[in-house]
Amino acid sequence: VVEDHATGFHAFSRLVENNQQFGDYHEAGLSTLLKWQRVCAPAFSKGLQSRGGIRLRPIFERALAMGDELHNRPHAATALLSIELTDRMLRAGVEPDRAADAQLFFSSNPFSALGVAMAASKLMADRIRGLEYSTVVSAMARNGTEFGIRVASLGDQWFTAPSPRVEGRYLPGFKAADAGLDMGDSVMTEAAGFGANLIAGAPGILRVVGGNSTQAKEWSGQMRAIAAGNSTHYSMPALDGKPAPLGIDIREVVATGFAPIIDTSIAHREPGYGIIGNGMVRAPMECFEKALQAFEAKYAA
Amino acid sequence: VVEDHATGFHAFSRLVENNQQFGDYHEAGLSTLLKWQRVCAPAFSKGLQSRGGIRLRPIFERALAMGDELHNRPHAATALLSIELTDRMLRAGVEPDRAADAQLFFSSNPFSALGVAMAASKLMADRIRGLEYSTVVSAMARNGTEFGIRVASLGDQWFTAPSPRVEGRYLPGFKAADAGLDMGDSVMTEAAGFGANLIAGAPGILRVVGGNSTQAKEWSGQMRAIAAGNSTHYSMPALDGKPAPLGIDIREVVATGFAPIIDTSIAHREPGYGIIGNGMVRAPMECFEKALQAFEAKYAA
Repeated sequence: VVEDHATGFHAFSRLVENNQQFGDYHEAGLSTLLKWQRVCAPAFSKGLQSRGGIRLRPIFERALAMGDELHNRPHAATALLSIELTDRMLRAGVEPDRAADAQLFFSSNPFSALGVAMAASKLMADRIRGLEYSTVVSAMARNGTEFGIRVASLGDQWFTAPSPRVEGRYLPGFKAADAGLDMGDSVMTEAAGFGANLIAGAPGILRVVGGNSTQAKEWSGQMRAIAAGNSTHYSMPALDGKPAPLGIDIREVVATGFAPIIDTSIAHREPGYGIIGNGMVRAPMECFEKALQAFEAKYAA
Repeated sequence: VVEDHATGFHAFSRLVENNQQFGDYHEAGLSTLLKWQRVCAPAFSKGLQSRGGIRLRPIFERALAMGDELHNRPHAATALLSIELTDRMLRAGVEPDRAADAQLFFSSNPFSALGVAMAASKLMADRIRGLEYSTVVSAMARNGTEFGIRVASLGDQWFTAPSPRVEGRYLPGFKAADAGLDMGDSVMTEAAGFGANLIAGAPGILRVVGGNSTQAKEWSGQMRAIAAGNSTHYSMPALDGKPAPLGIDIREVVATGFAPIIDTSIAHREPGYGIIGNGMVRAPMECFEKALQAFEAKYAA
C-alpha cells in the first residue's frame, strides 16, 4: 500500500511537472508533490522493492492506542511508518543523506500516514463491493458539490446529495465565508471504521476540529449505533478496550437518525489555497434514504 | 540527556562485561546492556556529538497527546526520539547498517524513552533542591526495602518507610507471591509530574497495570489535588487540554490523605528474572508525615 501511495504521488507529480502552466494551483501544494516525487518516491521505492511491503495492521493497532483516529489525526501512524520506511531504505542501500531527507520529509508532516490510511480503508471496503443483500456502505466521497455513498449490494451506483457545510475552526486569516463545501476522499476512513468512529480515543484532535471530550464520546457513541459490526483487530483503549466499529449500515442510519459524522479539513472555496480550517460535518441523510429505497426496490422485485 | 543516558549504559555494560562471573544476574538483561554498549552507544554518540543534543520538551509535549504518561508508557516518545536519533546518525556519517541496527534496537523496545524521561525528571526536580521554605518533593526513590522522599527545603535527607507491595497484573507464569516490594528510580517521573499524574490521558496502559478509564480519571484527579502547581508546557488533551500537574506538595498529601500514586513494573523477589508484572502502588504516607514534621521543626526554630 505504501508503495502504491508513493507511486501514485510519483505519477501525479510528473503530470504536474510537465504542465508549465500551473494556473491557479497552490504553489506550496505543488512543491510538496514535487518533493514526494524527487525525495521520497525513489528512496521509498528502493527500500520497499528490495525489502518488501509493510504490514499496516500492527501499525494501525498501535497508532489507535497512541491517540490516532487515522483520518485527521494520523500522527502516531506517521511516526511508526517513518521508522519502518527508514529501516527498509537503509537495509536496501539507499544513500544515507537521501534516506535522512526522505525520513525528514515524511515524518515532519504528521499527515503523511493519512494517504496510507485512506488507501487501506478503500481496500478494506472494496472487499464487500457487490456483496448481495448487504446494506453496508462500501464507499463515501465528496467533491465540494455533492456527497455520495455506495452500498455493497447496489453495485457502483452513487447515492448523492448536495455537499454539506463543515462546522469548524479556521486558521488565522480565514473565516466561514471563505470555505468551500465538504470535499475529498478522506471520508473513506470513516466508511471503514476509523476517523470520527474513534474520535473518543483521539482527544488530541479536538483542539483542531472543536468540541470537547464529552462530545467526542457522544460522536463515537452515535457512530457505534450505526455500525455494521465490530472490528476483530482494532480496539479503543480510551473506551476500556471496546472493539472499534466496522462499517456503516444504511438501515441503522435511517432507523436511528444518526447520519455518519466526519472529522475533516476545510478547503477554500477558490483554488490557490491550502487547508484553511478543520471541523466536523455529517453526511447528508438524503444519501442513505435514497440508498435504502433502491435496496428495497431491488430486493422487493 | 540522551547522550548521558547512552554513556551511562556504556559505563555500566563495560563493568558487566569485565565481570566474567555473572552469578545470579538475568542473562537477557545483561545481553540488553551489551547491545546498548555495542550497537547504540557508539552510533548515538557519533550522531549527538556531531549534530548536537535533542530538545526533549517538544517531544514530550507531542508524546503526551499520543497517549504516553512517560513512565510505564513512553511508547510515543520512543518512536519520536528514534526518528530524531536516526536523523542525527545519518547526517553524522554513521554507517547505514549500524544506524539501522541502532534504530531497530531502540525503537523496538517501547520503554527506550523511559530512561530519558527519568533523567529529564531528575533534572527538572533538581532545580528546586535546596529551595528554602519549599514543601515540594524534590526526589522519590525505592530500593525494594525502603521507599524514600526528599523535600526541596530539607536538603539531601531521605524520609523513608518500608517499601509497599504493588497491586498489579502478572505476566504468565508469575504470581503475587513471586513479587519483590516496590523498587526502582522510575518514580522520579511521578515526582516531576508525569506517570500516574497523567494516567487519565494514557488509557493504553490500563490493560497492563489494571484499572479502567473511570479509575484512571480518579487517580489523575487525586494527583492533581496534591500537586504543587500547573505545568506551563505540558497539558492533557484527554482532559480537554487541562495543564499537567507539576510537583508534589507534602502539605497537600498530608491534608488530603492522598498519597502519591505510581504506575510501575513489578520485579521478582529473587535476582535472575526480568519484570514479572505491572501495577499501581501508593507511596507510604509515613514518608510525607515524617517530612512535614521535619519541615515544621526546621522552620519553627
